[in-house]
Amino acid sequence: MPISETWLLPDGVADVLPEQAQVIESLRREALDFLASRGYQLVYTPFIEYIESLSSLSESNQDLDLATFKVIDQLSGRLLGVRADMTPQVARIDAHVHPVEGVARYCYAGTVLHTKPQGFNTTRAPLQLGAELFGSDSIDADVELIDVMINLLAKAGHADGIHLDLGHVGLFRSMVKQAGLSKAVERQLSDLYQRKALPELAEFTQSIPNGADFYTLGRFASDLDALQANLTADVLANEAFKLAFDAVKSTQAAIQARWPDLHIGIDVVELRSYHYHTGLMYAVYAPNRAAPLAQGGRYDGIGEHFGRARPATGFSCDLYALTAGQVQKSQVLVAPKGIEADLLKAIEAARTEGFSVVQLLGNDDLSSAPYATHQLVNANGEWTIKQI
Amino acid sequence: MPISETWLLPDGVADVLPEQAQVIESLRREALDFLASRGYQLVYTPFIEYIESLSSLSESNQDLDLATFKVIDQLSGRLLGVRADMTPQVARIDAHVHPVEGVARYCYAGTVLHTKPQGFNTTRAPLQLGAELFGSDSIDADVELIDVMINLLAKAGHADGIHLDLGHVGLFRSMVKQAGLSKAVERQLSDLYQRKALPELAEFTQSIPNGADFYTLGRFASDLDALQANLTADVLANEAFKLAFDAVKSTQAAIQARWPDLHIGIDVVELRSYHYHTGLMYAVYAPNRAAPLAQGGRYDGIGEHFGRARPATGFSCDLYALTAGQVQKSQVLVAPKGIEADLLKAIEAARTEGFSVVQLLGNDDLSSAPYATHQLVNANGEWTIKQI
Repeated sequence: MPISETWLLPDGVADVLPEQAQVIESLRREALDFLASRGYQLVYTPFIEYIESLSSLSESNQDLDLATFKVIDQLSGRLLGVRADMTPQVARIDAHVHPVEGVARYCYAGTVLHTKPQGFNTTRAPLQLGAELFGSDSIDADVELIDVMINLLAKAGHADGIHLDLGHVGLFRSMVKQAGLSKAVERQLSDLYQRKALPELAEFTQSIPNGADFYTLGRFASDLDALQANLTADVLANEAFKLAFDAVKSTQAAIQARWPDLHIGIDVVELRSYHYHTGLMYAVYAPNRAAPLAQGGRYDGIGEHFGRARPATGFSCDLYALTAGQVQKSQVLVAPKGIEADLLKAIEAARTEGFSVVQLLGNDDLSSAPYATHQLVNANGEWTIKQI
Repeated sequence: MPISETWLLPDGVADVLPEQAQVIESLRREALDFLASRGYQLVYTPFIEYIESLSSLSESNQDLDLATFKVIDQLSGRLLGVRADMTPQVARIDAHVHPVEGVARYCYAGTVLHTKPQGFNTTRAPLQLGAELFGSDSIDADVELIDVMINLLAKAGHADGIHLDLGHVGLFRSMVKQAGLSKAVERQLSDLYQRKALPELAEFTQSIPNGADFYTLGRFASDLDALQANLTADVLANEAFKLAFDAVKSTQAAIQARWPDLHIGIDVVELRSYHYHTGLMYAVYAPNRAAPLAQGGRYDGIGEHFGRARPATGFSCDLYALTAGQVQKSQVLVAPKGIEADLLKAIEAARTEGFSVVQLLGNDDLSSAPYATHQLVNANGEWTIKQI
């Protein structure tokens, strides 16, 4: 590799330079402090684990497995995975390492790596920040997480024009079970729903059991009243369907009561991460952005893999995506060299004021700090700050 | 793998639970804020890079190459390395990505991964925090970094009984050149110095050119005056030797002037990372710990690999090691469910006071939060905080 190319980075991987790093660092702190005030306790999860530990979700979610970089552990000879998602790790902590009685809340922030860009994002190394709640199957828990998620986005400057999408895998799943559909048909339907391909859906549903209901589900996916009016009585009377339907309805009402101006949309056939999730799903979108700002949902039983199945719900976001395009420059004050008490005192005072203060080195003059915004000068025995 | 073992972590890798994470998070922030106030600008470096970019140091430092986990990039088919050290990355940024004119100062904090435990540490995933200064070959720059390093350790609670070790690869290196020693002899000598094997050194130096001087260097490695009194005039008159000798001496004086109570030791044959460093080397030790709390040194020209060779000096430390054994518990206040204005106001007030406040979910009672330290109760229409 010629020297001229040694600085090239792999696709989807980037340096974060000071002007952006400062913005991200501020948001990271504000977000973690906010989550702590809400009872979410910070954990740091390991960057590498045995692949079996990371795969609690990937058994039914091949995407995550494919997204995971794998290396051989030189100490054990076993296969390690680099974390592609921190949720399974936090579930492991809840299940085994820190088995809190009652309801447990955790938050985290850290880089995850993906072998290939996921979804709309082009980055392969998002700075994932998230919150998880274990041990409550109440709708209150989902409402809390959604409320926390919206608050957090507001702190990141994403309040105007955002849009909350609510879904629930339970409507489709209960109908599939009731109709006794095969896995293959279930997958085909799920694919048609995701592609919002209504004409194709109309044709396909003509030849499957309860086909009219599956068409109705797609046709009125965003309108709970129309669904209720058009689904057959059999579906509406199904206990699992009713539970899921009521969960969406009461979550919508509870969030709207807390955020009266928020636009809430329903989409009961939004089935991304269908296998991963077990109940309510939520995502927040900003205008003119294809990828959600934050997303999450319920994934009860995730800890079963580690010997403790508990209800669980949570969300995550990418701090890089939330701060894209924002920069912040620091005020750099240049001071002369020396360790005289009055000079050091003036420097300390400027640092307390928020200045980034550098002292000249060796025989350097001001030209060694062309980025400086201010200068510490001695005028009549007094140290004063002068703009450059 | 049986479920009972899915929670096992690889050797040298650990979860950081809330009680410890809070301590580390606080120190991380305090340290980065302190570095910013000193003019060190925060950068985030990528977790993976092409192996050629990470190897700017490893050409002469096989240890770093061996410590680096390697994976195949599925996008380019090329070999990627997981960062085992962030210094080469910051050098790449200085050389190419953010080519500041004049003196540049950077700081960073992030996890690095090692294939095997390094040195005295048993962890394979230190949380590396460091500072680097590019563009000055003045001793003032090394003095600044050492001063910053000691200040930072004091903020981490490591002030009493610490011990600064100063070394300089230039003394040995200039003598090797002057005597015209072969690489093999140089390596053998370096090994004897590191093992502090004086009798063996005495025997070995009898058969090499200028042997007496190499024995003297080992014998009086920690005493500059004795070195001056016992080395031959030829060595003392060598320009490169003199530069290195004076650098150690003036650094010691400058640091002692700033930290009059600090114990400073000299060891001019402490040659760890000998190939990596090009000048002064510094490390701080605490009583009863084999591994240094922080260490660094000069590595001029590191950016040459990226097309811009500049003087450079810097240090790093492991935040996990600095905070080992420290824990901090949060105050958890439990509030009843509800969104009544007076309740929400009382909750917000408690959060502002620093409480971690959780509201009960569903039909939960206090037993859902056995870890709570306080409770929000309504007494005569007033919300008050009661200790549990």
